[in-house]
Amino acid sequence: MIRVTIWNEYGKDQRSGRAGEVYPGGIHTILKEKLADRDFVITTACQEPDEDDGIPDELLNSTDVLVWWGHLHNHEVHPKTVDRICDRIYKGMGFIPLHSSHRSLPFCRLMGTSCDLTWREKAGENAFIWTVSPDHPIAEGIPPYFELEEEEMYGEYFDIPAPDEIVFLTWFRGGNVFRGGITFRRRLGKIFYFHPGHETARSYYNENVIKIIKNAIRWAAPKSDKKLEVGEWQDPVNEF
Amino acid sequence: MIRVTIWNEYGKDQRSGRAGEVYPGGIHTILKEKLADRDFVITTACQEPDEDDGIPDELLNSTDVLVWWGHLHNHEVHPKTVDRICDRIYKGMGFIPLHSSHRSLPFCRLMGTSCDLTWREKAGENAFIWTVSPDHPIAEGIPPYFELEEEEMYGEYFDIPAPDEIVFLTWFRGGNVFRGGITFRRRLGKIFYFHPGHETARSYYNENVIKIIKNAIRWAAPKSDKKLEVGEWQDPVNEF
Amino acid sequence: MIRVTIWNEYGKDQRSGRAGEVYPGGIHTILKEKLADRDFVITTACQEPDEDDGIPDELLNSTDVLVWWGHLHNHEVHPKTVDRICDRIYKGMGFIPLHSSHRSLPFCRLMGTSCDLTWREKAGENAFIWTVSPDHPIAEGIPPYFELEEEEMYGEYFDIPAPDEIVFLTWFRGGNVFRGGITFRRRLGKIFYFHPGHETARSYYNENVIKIIKNAIRWAAPKSDKKLEVGEWQDPVNEF
Amino acid sequence: MIRVTIWNEYGKDQRSGRAGEVYPGGIHTILKEKLADRDFVITTACQEPDEDDGIPDELLNSTDVLVWWGHLHNHEVHPKTVDRICDRIYKGMGFIPLHSSHRSLPFCRLMGTSCDLTWREKAGENAFIWTVSPDHPIAEGIPPYFELEEEEMYGEYFDIPAPDEIVFLTWFRGGNVFRGGITFRRRLGKIFYFHPGHETARSYYNENVIKIIKNAIRWAAPKSDKKLEVGEWQDPVNEF
Repeated sequence: MIRVTIWNEYGKDQRSGRAGEVYPGGIHTILKEKLADRDFVITTACQEPDEDDGIPDELLNSTDVLVWWGHLHNHEVHPKTVDRICDRIYKGMGFIPLHSSHRSLPFCRLMGTSCDLTWREKAGENAFIWTVSPDHPIAEGIPPYFELEEEEMYGEYFDIPAPDEIVFLTWFRGGNVFRGGITFRRRLGKIFYFHPGHETARSYYNENVIKIIKNAIRWAAPKSDKKLEVGEWQDPVNEF
Repeated sequence: MIRVTIWNEYGKDQRSGRAGEVYPGGIHTILKEKLADRDFVITTACQEPDEDDGIPDELLNSTDVLVWWGHLHNHEVHPKTVDRICDRIYKGMGFIPLHSSHRSLPFCRLMGTSCDLTWREKAGENAFIWTVSPDHPIAEGIPPYFELEEEEMYGEYFDIPAPDEIVFLTWFRGGNVFRGGITFRRRLGKIFYFHPGHETARSYYNENVIKIIKNAIRWAAPKSDKKLEVGEWQDPVNEF
Repeated sequence: MIRVTIWNEYGKDQRSGRAGEVYPGGIHTILKEKLADRDFVITTACQEPDEDDGIPDELLNSTDVLVWWGHLHNHEVHPKTVDRICDRIYKGMGFIPLHSSHRSLPFCRLMGTSCDLTWREKAGENAFIWTVSPDHPIAEGIPPYFELEEEEMYGEYFDIPAPDEIVFLTWFRGGNVFRGGITFRRRLGKIFYFHPGHETARSYYNENVIKIIKNAIRWAAPKSDKKLEVGEWQDPVNEF
Repeated sequence: MIRVTIWNEYGKDQRSGRAGEVYPGGIHTILKEKLADRDFVITTACQEPDEDDGIPDELLNSTDVLVWWGHLHNHEVHPKTVDRICDRIYKGMGFIPLHSSHRSLPFCRLMGTSCDLTWREKAGENAFIWTVSPDHPIAEGIPPYFELEEEEMYGEYFDIPAPDEIVFLTWFRGGNVFRGGITFRRRLGKIFYFHPGHETARSYYNENVIKIIKNAIRWAAPKSDKKLEVGEWQDPVNEF
């Protein structure tokens, strides 16, 4: 069983208006429902104003894959929480930052860059997601391309290190392209950033989006408890 | 001085009609004119039905960077010519296959895959080329994006190995994206594939397209005569 | 179940002398025994002088992962067999060339380079294999390093394209290093090259070597029957 | 002219004893002398206990390539200095952390990982540096391998993201291997980490080590003042 935790900042902006209508109960609630799978045990968590940010050690340390959705409150996550999350990733926890979590503090720290991008919110802008690494486990069962009927435009230049793998590229009607489904590895942790999921777009009701996130959870899950020895090493392996 | 050879198949289809109007004297002639630079000595060559394919050893062995444009006659290049070109690339010659040369025999051999892609010729389809590796020497002086007013659509899935570097991504109005400006290294040779240049499109009159090809020539040019020793090695470096 | 085929050239040199003692019945026989796993159905095949090279379509087309051991007879494999094998890889079959198969014709074609390397056969030369991508599925359960008590030295410069991933690096007592456990993707096929396995060295009796090959088989196995559409595409996805 | 700044922590441990004998006046002084080149204007700077850490804005903002040597005092560099250095790198300054600067705060921030490695200081341990990307500008004029007669062992596992390019791999007599000459790109900045340079080893008197650092300075130098626009973009490029 893969222990999945879906974390959502779930601020006021998500609780009413258009966002509240599209994702009643919050994005985490809908994601939990859609991602349901006999291989997953799914927990949800929301940002709290306390020091734990809604994800205390007890929960974090029993999480195999952390799905993260942050936006307006990205910068309110406490530095200690960022430390704790990154440490857990280094030890092998998978990490799947979605949409505006490209600017979340854990993702930015793992990248070492600003993670800025070009963006535009325009009613009715559709997108096509193209598979460019069809052999990748995250692309399993995904067609050569599929459409998002409406989504916030996220485009290049995307200020990230060169990804380890580009699984998907996205086309936006307004003229932009985006490396929108990409992988990174940091020590023992696998990371998959995926762009769909504006709070007022219906992307998490899209069957292929859900399939991709499910594939990513399986890909990112740690296979075993690994331990890495590094540091001082007085004795040579080869005697001389 | 960088010795540049521009090779063009220059078949009947290029000599008249719309192609002949857009590129009078052939694409090689216009490219030679546009690429003129005080650092370059440029020679042109056209496909000949003889065994040398218009690029005899004498010419090939004095070429630092080979710019290649092939299309309908890609498969008529003799196997020995493919051998000779690849050998020269392995020894350090730069190679810049343009547009439909994605299916040229030298490029396919260097890739080890089919190099198939999705394509569509449709009047009035415009494209935007986006810079995704702004620090790359090939992107020097190129803006975040620029437009091609009309170009043949080349899109994903593009059946190539993962490129060493993706310098440019292209958006096409019809809904496609393309890894259209990409680098590869094979032994001592640097390769840059760049997609613009349909025979009836005016892309080689585009200032940014020309600047990119010029940058690529400088980037791909061998810096010195290098020699690589590989093979049997009876004596250990470290005595034991 | 993963259908694994182990192909060995099994020439005269393997049938007697030191090689025959170390691997009675041939490397394929010992590998079949050691790789036995409830998730695998293993078949062996040996090079035959006929056009099928011992791996007719019937066998090839029911193979999920092909483990390949070639050496002195690498260049006797028929071009049509190379075509057939590469086509099957492009369609998703995993490919695991071992040791001197770095110069096998299928591997060389997939790489697009000579695949030359530096080598030395010296009695008693030991090696250490270091894990540099500890998160990789192929490194699952493998310690930070392990020893091969005697192995043929394979070293840099190794004339290959930059690998997609370097999972293992090898140290040789005589002073050489080698990118000896590396992955590549070609269309839908996953490739893992792994260097241990000189015909007179006991590497295939090494528990970690076997674990790595088993991990690689699982990693390279196709997950489903995928099909990639590429080619002419008259209708745009986005109407304009 | 490339404006090079060589920064050295130059603590007490470097000013006397064996280190003081090997590098009289400090590593920065010897490096400045050895790296002298008609294309470079070289400045040196040493760590100061003030907030500027010896590299005030005036100096930093007129630096094209920053060569960095830190060790025992890596963690005493002020966070603001780390911010300033990284910001300048993002804008295009080259960065060349040497030896124990793998744990310097700017390098760790750019990597997003711990940058831990395995190490051993043992008298008389020699090393061989192997060129694995012979076409790379940083390998220009460097032989297939060369020896360091004595150097501190730095080995795998090295906790870094997968490098963009591995230019050199190092063998250590004691049995270790190391990705010791590697490149990374962060926004507009190029980074080259290179391991030789223990304070009591004579590596900076080695002709090839110096040639590599000089090549790296040329490679990392910004070619022009570039500016990247990212951020909100209300108007689509493609009207719809």
